[in-house]
Amino acid sequence: MTFPAPLTGVVPPVCTPLTPDREVDVRSLTRLVDHLVEAGVDGLFVLGSSSEAAYLTDAQRRLVVETVAGHIGGRLPLLAGAIDMTTPRVIDHVRSVAAAGADAVVVTAPFYTRTHPAEIARHFRLVAAASPVPVIAYDIPSAVHSKLPAPLVLDLAAEGVLAGLKDSSGDLAGFREVVTGARERPGVSGFGVLTGSELLVDSALALGADGAVPGLANVDPHGYVRLVRLCRAGDWQRARAEQERLCALFGLVEAGDPGRMGGSSSALGAFKAALHLRGVIDCPATAEPQVPLSPEEVERVGKYLASAGLL
Amino acid sequence: MTFPAPLTGVVPPVCTPLTPDREVDVRSLTRLVDHLVEAGVDGLFVLGSSSEAAYLTDAQRRLVVETVAGHIGGRLPLLAGAIDMTTPRVIDHVRSVAAAGADAVVVTAPFYTRTHPAEIARHFRLVAAASPVPVIAYDIPSAVHSKLPAPLVLDLAAEGVLAGLKDSSGDLAGFREVVTGARERPGVSGFGVLTGSELLVDSALALGADGAVPGLANVDPHGYVRLVRLCRAGDWQRARAEQERLCALFGLVEAGDPGRMGGSSSALGAFKAALHLRGVIDCPATAEPQVPLSPEEVERVGKYLASAGLL
Amino acid sequence: MTFPAPLTGVVPPVCTPLTPDREVDVRSLTRLVDHLVEAGVDGLFVLGSSSEAAYLTDAQRRLVVETVAGHIGGRLPLLAGAIDMTTPRVIDHVRSVAAAGADAVVVTAPFYTRTHPAEIARHFRLVAAASPVPVIAYDIPSAVHSKLPAPLVLDLAAEGVLAGLKDSSGDLAGFREVVTGARERPGVSGFGVLTGSELLVDSALALGADGAVPGLANVDPHGYVRLVRLCRAGDWQRARAEQERLCALFGLVEAGDPGRMGGSSSALGAFKAALHLRGVIDCPATAEPQVPLSPEEVERVGKYLASAGLL
Amino acid sequence: MTFPAPLTGVVPPVCTPLTPDREVDVRSLTRLVDHLVEAGVDGLFVLGSSSEAAYLTDAQRRLVVETVAGHIGGRLPLLAGAIDMTTPRVIDHVRSVAAAGADAVVVTAPFYTRTHPAEIARHFRLVAAASPVPVIAYDIPSAVHSKLPAPLVLDLAAEGVLAGLKDSSGDLAGFREVVTGARERPGVSGFGVLTGSELLVDSALALGADGAVPGLANVDPHGYVRLVRLCRAGDWQRARAEQERLCALFGLVEAGDPGRMGGSSSALGAFKAALHLRGVIDCPATAEPQVPLSPEEVERVGKYLASAGLL
Repeated sequence: MTFPAPLTGVVPPVCTPLTPDREVDVRSLTRLVDHLVEAGVDGLFVLGSSSEAAYLTDAQRRLVVETVAGHIGGRLPLLAGAIDMTTPRVIDHVRSVAAAGADAVVVTAPFYTRTHPAEIARHFRLVAAASPVPVIAYDIPSAVHSKLPAPLVLDLAAEGVLAGLKDSSGDLAGFREVVTGARERPGVSGFGVLTGSELLVDSALALGADGAVPGLANVDPHGYVRLVRLCRAGDWQRARAEQERLCALFGLVEAGDPGRMGGSSSALGAFKAALHLRGVIDCPATAEPQVPLSPEEVERVGKYLASAGLL
Repeated sequence: MTFPAPLTGVVPPVCTPLTPDREVDVRSLTRLVDHLVEAGVDGLFVLGSSSEAAYLTDAQRRLVVETVAGHIGGRLPLLAGAIDMTTPRVIDHVRSVAAAGADAVVVTAPFYTRTHPAEIARHFRLVAAASPVPVIAYDIPSAVHSKLPAPLVLDLAAEGVLAGLKDSSGDLAGFREVVTGARERPGVSGFGVLTGSELLVDSALALGADGAVPGLANVDPHGYVRLVRLCRAGDWQRARAEQERLCALFGLVEAGDPGRMGGSSSALGAFKAALHLRGVIDCPATAEPQVPLSPEEVERVGKYLASAGLL
Repeated sequence: MTFPAPLTGVVPPVCTPLTPDREVDVRSLTRLVDHLVEAGVDGLFVLGSSSEAAYLTDAQRRLVVETVAGHIGGRLPLLAGAIDMTTPRVIDHVRSVAAAGADAVVVTAPFYTRTHPAEIARHFRLVAAASPVPVIAYDIPSAVHSKLPAPLVLDLAAEGVLAGLKDSSGDLAGFREVVTGARERPGVSGFGVLTGSELLVDSALALGADGAVPGLANVDPHGYVRLVRLCRAGDWQRARAEQERLCALFGLVEAGDPGRMGGSSSALGAFKAALHLRGVIDCPATAEPQVPLSPEEVERVGKYLASAGLL
Repeated sequence: MTFPAPLTGVVPPVCTPLTPDREVDVRSLTRLVDHLVEAGVDGLFVLGSSSEAAYLTDAQRRLVVETVAGHIGGRLPLLAGAIDMTTPRVIDHVRSVAAAGADAVVVTAPFYTRTHPAEIARHFRLVAAASPVPVIAYDIPSAVHSKLPAPLVLDLAAEGVLAGLKDSSGDLAGFREVVTGARERPGVSGFGVLTGSELLVDSALALGADGAVPGLANVDPHGYVRLVRLCRAGDWQRARAEQERLCALFGLVEAGDPGRMGGSSSALGAFKAALHLRGVIDCPATAEPQVPLSPEEVERVGKYLASAGLL
């Protein structure tokens, strides 16, 4: 499909259901995609952090993109992460996911290695030059340990290198600088600015963002679709109430005991436990070396679902 | 070859020479290997941080291991990095580099994703279970943003999961805890503890380390071989003088202007510029998106070589 | 005066004008207070970060509180920072500023020393027990290098230990958790939740915050008073326009060359240069060891003022 | 006394014994000083991190310096910390501790506020200009969140601004750069370079350091005095054995449960518990808001003492 300029609305970062032996569960994946599409989402983002992209082998990554691209058949824009350490490795992934059917790629700053704004700019320019599809920048300092400076993002937008931004930085003030700049700066047009926050979608849309990429939309896509519609209608009071309901639900990401596991195990484990409890996927397994939730922790996830009216 | 238990001595992390269009320069790579072997090093480590492993594509990584394994033909132990974000991806690399001829693999904690000591332990256990060759832990917090706790390393050593440690943490006190523990702890034997520091090899050996993996040994392998011999002979005064000469030489890693480039561009650019100036490799190019040294910055590298008596 | 419960509206963190030899400039300070009061602010906060509290001696701190308390004579609530490393030292400052006329004190988590949530809770409980006036928590991770967890703030609010929060964390999602909790949690009442952000006042008020403590309100108090009134009236569109004007003005904090000085020198230097250019204070000097702005950098500040219609 | 140039040997950072109600326990403090002096230490450092300087009120700080200065009566050089956020506040402390009898002051980089190398240099220059006694730089990034760059320290040494360095950075390579520079650089003389590490005193002295300031020397001053003598005699093998014994003893700093308390509570609580068990001080209380060790945790401290032959 023609990639929308700008990309807008709810674009869930799609979880990757796994079988008990940690292979991609294709049937559950297509069921999850149906669950999202039927709720009215505006696009799909595979191979992001919520998709456990960091844990999937190259073969699994390819299978995910092919499965989802084949299943949605161009009904919605499909974004795919090309998550790797540096330019040459990212370009390999870009080619692979574009060949498998992605309509756009999502790319972070270099990581593992020490980097510099000049190198980050060079990285995006080289990736974009090699990519057959539009490139969306992925600002995720918790993973890559550097922050994309707003002026750099806007420069690259004006150059036509970047088609959008997915901001998972938690820094709404910096995000606002990109949103405002994308509107005012000569030469920037069709640039989609999306928040990766689950908790500030109303705030982000109120200050001019184009959409949201919330991991929690796997669990409650209807909630986020409603929320974005209320924002667009300018009904900020009901939007806030919907957002607060989703904030309460988001508490499930802390279901896992931090003494036993890291934040990824807990949050992704909880998303998958919730999808399993809701009957969307067959198995809640997360990829290695993540620690599985205990039965008590899964029960805690169930209580969040019940409180949010989702069970 | 049979992998030595413990691994000892000077094990340079071998730079990866590139052609002007950023392909692996096989001829320069074998020349670099000869330069190191003839200086008397005790092993070779390819696909580490100094090898730009983070920048090499899977095809390039394979080519590096095959080239070096073929060239040294079992004369020295060959370690290869299997640098990737999490267990499933690391295991793919482990299989690939072992098939290409590596005698041991070097593996970091998970990165990009948030992690936890329990997950790090699980990671190394799963990697070791899947690896046909011994596994060396690579402690490099500047890259992976977590530190391997000494007790965890010693537990995994006692279990037989790890065959050694390459410590690039800069934390010599923590390193000492591993060195002492590896000597005293029941059940640990043949565990090689190597420092990744260029600047504290004498200190590390004095407190009981088995060897060193200094990036600067690409530039001056004879210096590090001499240094380790002096330490082994207990000639600490001359060892210190040799170490101080190498410390002065290490200043070349700051040849690049920090306003224009990151620390990786500067340090790896300087190593390669030095190898080029010394006539070992044909082209000093570093991988993208690193920023090349300017002619003035290369000249600065030359002055360090001259001061150290290497030109 | 009776301290309002909750504290609401615009509460500027008052700059501390200095003479050329770095003494408190009492005349300029009272002129600045008049400038703020006449613009319609709802309270004043002295000895915060924007007041250079970290740079003022104990004698200077006392003089600031006495001067402002004497000058406003109870017309507005007066908050004073009691900024120091740990409980016993903070308690000394609390007593001193309360004796000098402060209606409430503003206190951070312990810093310099390593701390823990249990110690932070103990700290606030002990400070509150010793304080003759209400205690407001100051969440400023950039200075103290720990973040106040929202549940801890809410626990202390429910216990009556804390009367409010000034949030300078930049984490609007965590802030929202406190705002929502302060509304919903049994036992919490009259707890004032204020953002320290200059850039997200409309967002913060839209999600339920009580007010704002923006350093930039020294320079343009009328703007922030207008902004808060528009938010309270539910006129979000005009509020956003006013906020965006203030965001543009905030660019002045980057007037100083980051190669020559740190962020504090640049931001506080720019606030004071603006106040000097606007004729409010006599001298733009900042405390030692901050680096003064150059004439060109001051000129840059002037351009921001002109663009915002303030010259 | 004339302050030694350079300062050398074992200079313990003296713990501050407190009464059960957290006042300075003067009798215990003088007993602790006797315990250290009789063991043969070369100087005393009060009001450092191990002294809980961050927790002591100004009145308590003064009492500590007066007590120790009065008690040692010039027999040993007395260093005192002047720990505060910025130049003007530090200068107040410098004057106070010098008036109370300190022979030198120990000063960190600015903290709480954002800083810059140019501001750090300015800070030390201004402090030295105002100080009646020599100034020692205190490099403690864990507390102040910036690292003193070696070239800056050496520049200030050459200017005569600094008389020495206490390095608690944990970065032995950077420390070595200062040690070597202090020996080689024209214009630097009499500059004392001391490590703050408990665990690497042999390593530091082997590479040329002048002495050590180990907190654990409160507990076992004889051990550190022996260790430094062995190093000076060039008996590196016995030095290493003594150092390893002290490394094992240092394990006591982890006696406190990290789920219940921070690292300061645990380490300083353990030092004081050990001094109490050894009969040197009357009460093991630490300052607020530190969490006290439980009886079981104190018992753990006792086991470390027993293993080290100190009970």
